[in-house]
Amino acid sequence: MAADIKRFRYGDPIETDAVTVGIPVSPGDPRGLKVDANAKTMSCVMSEDTIVYGLGETVRGINKRGWLYKSFNADDPHHEEGKNSLYASQNFILLDDGTDCIGYYFDHPGAVYFDIGYTDIDTCTVSFDDMDLYVYAIEGDTPLEIVREFRRIIGTSYIPPKWAFGYGQSRWGYKCAKDIREVADKYDELDIPIDMIYMDIDYMTDFKVFTVDPEKFPNTADFVAEMKARGIHVVPNTDPGVKIEPGYSVYEEGLSGGHFCKKEDGTELVAAVWPGKIHFPDFLNSDARRWFGDKYKVMTDLGIDGFWNDMNEPAIFYTDEILNGVYEELEELKGREMDIWGFFKFKELMESIDNNPEDYRRFYHDMDGRKVRHDKVHNLYSFNMTKAAGEAFKRNNPGQEILLFSRASFIGAHRYGGVWTGDNMSWWSHLLLNIKQMPSLNMTGFLYSGADTGGFGADTTEDLMMRWIEFSMFTPLFRNHSALGTREQELYRFKRKEDFRHLIELRYALIPYIYDSFVKAAKENDMYIKPLAFDYRSDQNCRDIEDQLLVGDSIMIAPVYEQNAKGRFVYLPENMKFVRFRSAEDYDTEILNKGTHHIDLALNEVAVFIRPGHRLPLAKPAKRVGDIDFENLKYIEG
Amino acid sequence: MAADIKRFRYGDPIETDAVTVGIPVSPGDPRGLKVDANAKTMSCVMSEDTIVYGLGETVRGINKRGWLYKSFNADDPHHEEGKNSLYASQNFILLDDGTDCIGYYFDHPGAVYFDIGYTDIDTCTVSFDDMDLYVYAIEGDTPLEIVREFRRIIGTSYIPPKWAFGYGQSRWGYKCAKDIREVADKYDELDIPIDMIYMDIDYMTDFKVFTVDPEKFPNTADFVAEMKARGIHVVPNTDPGVKIEPGYSVYEEGLSGGHFCKKEDGTELVAAVWPGKIHFPDFLNSDARRWFGDKYKVMTDLGIDGFWNDMNEPAIFYTDEILNGVYEELEELKGREMDIWGFFKFKELMESIDNNPEDYRRFYHDMDGRKVRHDKVHNLYSFNMTKAAGEAFKRNNPGQEILLFSRASFIGAHRYGGVWTGDNMSWWSHLLLNIKQMPSLNMTGFLYSGADTGGFGADTTEDLMMRWIEFSMFTPLFRNHSALGTREQELYRFKRKEDFRHLIELRYALIPYIYDSFVKAAKENDMYIKPLAFDYRSDQNCRDIEDQLLVGDSIMIAPVYEQNAKGRFVYLPENMKFVRFRSAEDYDTEILNKGTHHIDLALNEVAVFIRPGHRLPLAKPAKRVGDIDFENLKYIEG
Repeated sequence: MAADIKRFRYGDPIETDAVTVGIPVSPGDPRGLKVDANAKTMSCVMSEDTIVYGLGETVRGINKRGWLYKSFNADDPHHEEGKNSLYASQNFILLDDGTDCIGYYFDHPGAVYFDIGYTDIDTCTVSFDDMDLYVYAIEGDTPLEIVREFRRIIGTSYIPPKWAFGYGQSRWGYKCAKDIREVADKYDELDIPIDMIYMDIDYMTDFKVFTVDPEKFPNTADFVAEMKARGIHVVPNTDPGVKIEPGYSVYEEGLSGGHFCKKEDGTELVAAVWPGKIHFPDFLNSDARRWFGDKYKVMTDLGIDGFWNDMNEPAIFYTDEILNGVYEELEELKGREMDIWGFFKFKELMESIDNNPEDYRRFYHDMDGRKVRHDKVHNLYSFNMTKAAGEAFKRNNPGQEILLFSRASFIGAHRYGGVWTGDNMSWWSHLLLNIKQMPSLNMTGFLYSGADTGGFGADTTEDLMMRWIEFSMFTPLFRNHSALGTREQELYRFKRKEDFRHLIELRYALIPYIYDSFVKAAKENDMYIKPLAFDYRSDQNCRDIEDQLLVGDSIMIAPVYEQNAKGRFVYLPENMKFVRFRSAEDYDTEILNKGTHHIDLALNEVAVFIRPGHRLPLAKPAKRVGDIDFENLKYIEG
Repeated sequence: MAADIKRFRYGDPIETDAVTVGIPVSPGDPRGLKVDANAKTMSCVMSEDTIVYGLGETVRGINKRGWLYKSFNADDPHHEEGKNSLYASQNFILLDDGTDCIGYYFDHPGAVYFDIGYTDIDTCTVSFDDMDLYVYAIEGDTPLEIVREFRRIIGTSYIPPKWAFGYGQSRWGYKCAKDIREVADKYDELDIPIDMIYMDIDYMTDFKVFTVDPEKFPNTADFVAEMKARGIHVVPNTDPGVKIEPGYSVYEEGLSGGHFCKKEDGTELVAAVWPGKIHFPDFLNSDARRWFGDKYKVMTDLGIDGFWNDMNEPAIFYTDEILNGVYEELEELKGREMDIWGFFKFKELMESIDNNPEDYRRFYHDMDGRKVRHDKVHNLYSFNMTKAAGEAFKRNNPGQEILLFSRASFIGAHRYGGVWTGDNMSWWSHLLLNIKQMPSLNMTGFLYSGADTGGFGADTTEDLMMRWIEFSMFTPLFRNHSALGTREQELYRFKRKEDFRHLIELRYALIPYIYDSFVKAAKENDMYIKPLAFDYRSDQNCRDIEDQLLVGDSIMIAPVYEQNAKGRFVYLPENMKFVRFRSAEDYDTEILNKGTHHIDLALNEVAVFIRPGHRLPLAKPAKRVGDIDFENLKYIEG
């Protein structure tokens, strides 16, 4: 059967702009879904063999069965497996029992709840606060066919500049031009390739968006040019919250233009983020979006050609409304003896301050005439920030390729930029989570993606950093990023510098393969990185294995993600050539037979398996992407 | 070479009572350790092949390399891999590079810091706030020989009553006799075996230790007898904090006897825990220990014959000293605009309230004449609470077998009781942590041990519960326990009741093997559960694999600990008989060859591998341990 999509309408949906292809509304309900309008639920039965793919960037496995997920973009760095929401909301699921498969996209801008075998181990139930939405049911012969068809209707994925496939170094804590220059110098001294150095929030004047602190960066344009002359792109962080400060032009313009989100009473919402008190631009309004988008020109005029949009769930540290309430309740507890219940109340009060649901119900958007309370369209906020930037770049920087990626996301944003998976931790379990998130993000169009390699929060270790690099070297976005107060983790901080250099060089040798596979996947609505079962669907082991992935058409990877492991088990669905890389020039190859193996992989070794009939091109390692010779490649035959 | 132990003395050690065998002090330093008295460190080099075993109950793997651990008993339920301290402190490490091995025991009652390849990937450094301690260096031909020798000097492990090998159901939330009776009824209705029902803090009057609320339990002795008549032991929670309440006899006695911990000025420390304001008994004083121990008689006189000692790190919710300081600082922040730094300060203030290090420096112990500040001997607190109970049982209940286990622990306590691994979470990663903690606990003498099966905090899932049971059925302590406010997880709450019944019945069928292996390990200072490498040391794969374990002499287990996995990889160091159990009566067997396999294991299936030349006895399933026929066993030959 050819792939087929049907659209169904429930209630009075808000148009999200996630889908770009017009599809007539079908009568009835989607095949396989039992719709209960009173309960605001849609549910389906899962057989024992059913795998549920999807949900993009969230917790747990590639198979999403056995948990509760809430699509409601959340600023939660401490995202262990007990959490329900992460930074992103991608409401696409795909059920496959091995013979029958179907995909569903729930096009709804507010909270969506997925109970995938949690309450009842055999039932998948999707529910809504308001059942106003479109549901797309996508049929096809295989999961991959369904993904491709879904990707067709949501539009082509963003393709970044080629240099954005290089290695990037970041840290919350680089304070000035000197700090960034030092990073570049250290990498160059050690001959470790690098294409990007990121500027986290420190570069701004008092955390004011679209400013650069003139004391830290006395002549920004010259500095950016100096870095670019040595082949390094400086990529700043951009935040939605605009500091309330009379005289600050972005604040003044936003206020006089009426571009900020307002409360019920028509006054601007005041929330606090990095700079203290701020207003939020109303990205859901086309005038505000255009206004904010044009502000990026302040930065591109300085020569900057890459941005990461941060904090755009949007994260809220506090509002006075919540904080004053907390202070009142604290006053009541003061001096009292707290037993268990008092103590718990105290703790809960403290935890209620940031990202409080009440705050998300406190302000409104003007969706070009339609006034909508924020919580009803919460998941569109980051999408429209990304869109504001992406549209502005087309308008103001025609012909220029600009790097753009975001923390929060919603399907649709993939047309304008990529994502990183937010503030993870330096945990081995977050390396594994990274492995499992990548194919799910690919299904929903976010091809340019990757995690904070080495981990953002908490202290990393040299071995975690090395193993993480051995995975991240296959993700399109490849960035080492860490938080203020954690162990410094630039690669030159560690002991085995030579091994790190070899690994980054190997990434650069692989860029022709990675880039070509990426562009092909973007243009053909295909997946750059996918689960084994997408290509070996009838192989039961492949349906089960979540820690080996297919990258492009030619290779399978099997990263090590356990501390102190000197190897790992690997399953080959067919005979493949196992390449054990120590560097782009130093590797062994061996044909391994279909079946189960335990392979040794020393800390500095990377396993790549070339599929039969395929070959893996390797470029001569270069220090910058721009210096890679894409024409003269060496091939390892499969 | 025969096993050999040397003792070394540094500074002025506090006697901990961890070691029971007198060993003369040797001159010089232990082999392999570089001692730096100024830096208060002892360090050694690790080769690439060195595995570092030990540290008992803590985070991360069986091989402890690559992290920082701090021995300082901590009440931290949110113990992901970024943490450094858990509930227990067992300062024993064992380095093995495959040919040379050596064990070190750092006999120190305060904080001990282990940097095992964190700062320098090739160096293991142990450090102290005060370098007053004994170091025991244990030599032997194999890791197992070293463990046995170490166990010999710390004394024979506690052996609980046989019924304590049954299945136990617990939940913070059983409020009264009716609740507990209902649990028993439901298990009996479904024919699921059970031997214990636990009472968490709710059974007390206002959380006062050694009280039973007469409204909830109108006639406790009758109720305990009624439960015992149906073969179920009621096991209450016991806490160290004594509520400050004039007229409450335990408080009055403790105060008049001078049994509570005092501050510098000689007045009793006031801290807050469950009941509100409390005093802490000074378990490090022999009079206080005897006094508190005798209080257990209040409970044993009611027919109770099992106890779990909780909160004995000791956990502190707050003291007025800290809380008042926090209120003062909050007052200063009030009404101010908080930018990032203000907000972080606010958050830190809130997190400083419980288990504050300042509070642990605020009070003292009277160690039979020697006044010692609490933080210097922090890790002895729970040990001496366990000892108080264990000694009292010998004194007051001669000949009676009483179940006793503790949350916090220190080596030495293993002679008086077992441990559970504290307040874990309903996370798949905590099931894996449980697997990795068990052999480490065994090395340090804590044989009677197990985790809160299904997870204490957070919401469990049916599949997690089932997979966890499939591992916990091999741990001596086998308890399902969960926290107030989380999903209820008694087995009858789930859908696949029949599968759960079969699994618990299988545990009961295995009890003859488990019990005999346990008692043999205890008596011979051996390990009940151990890493593969302890028996297959020259097999590199066995040195690497941490998710398969040897249980007793005859079997290897390979639990599934990944959500939605329908099987797993397994490595066999020699040919073994693979038994795929669905129940004690329903299983397949198959000889699997030495090497690597991927085996299918449905959600209700348990993998056991019988070693060649061994056999696995199975009893006829019974509903109570007391009804198991230990004589008429069926054997599966290996």
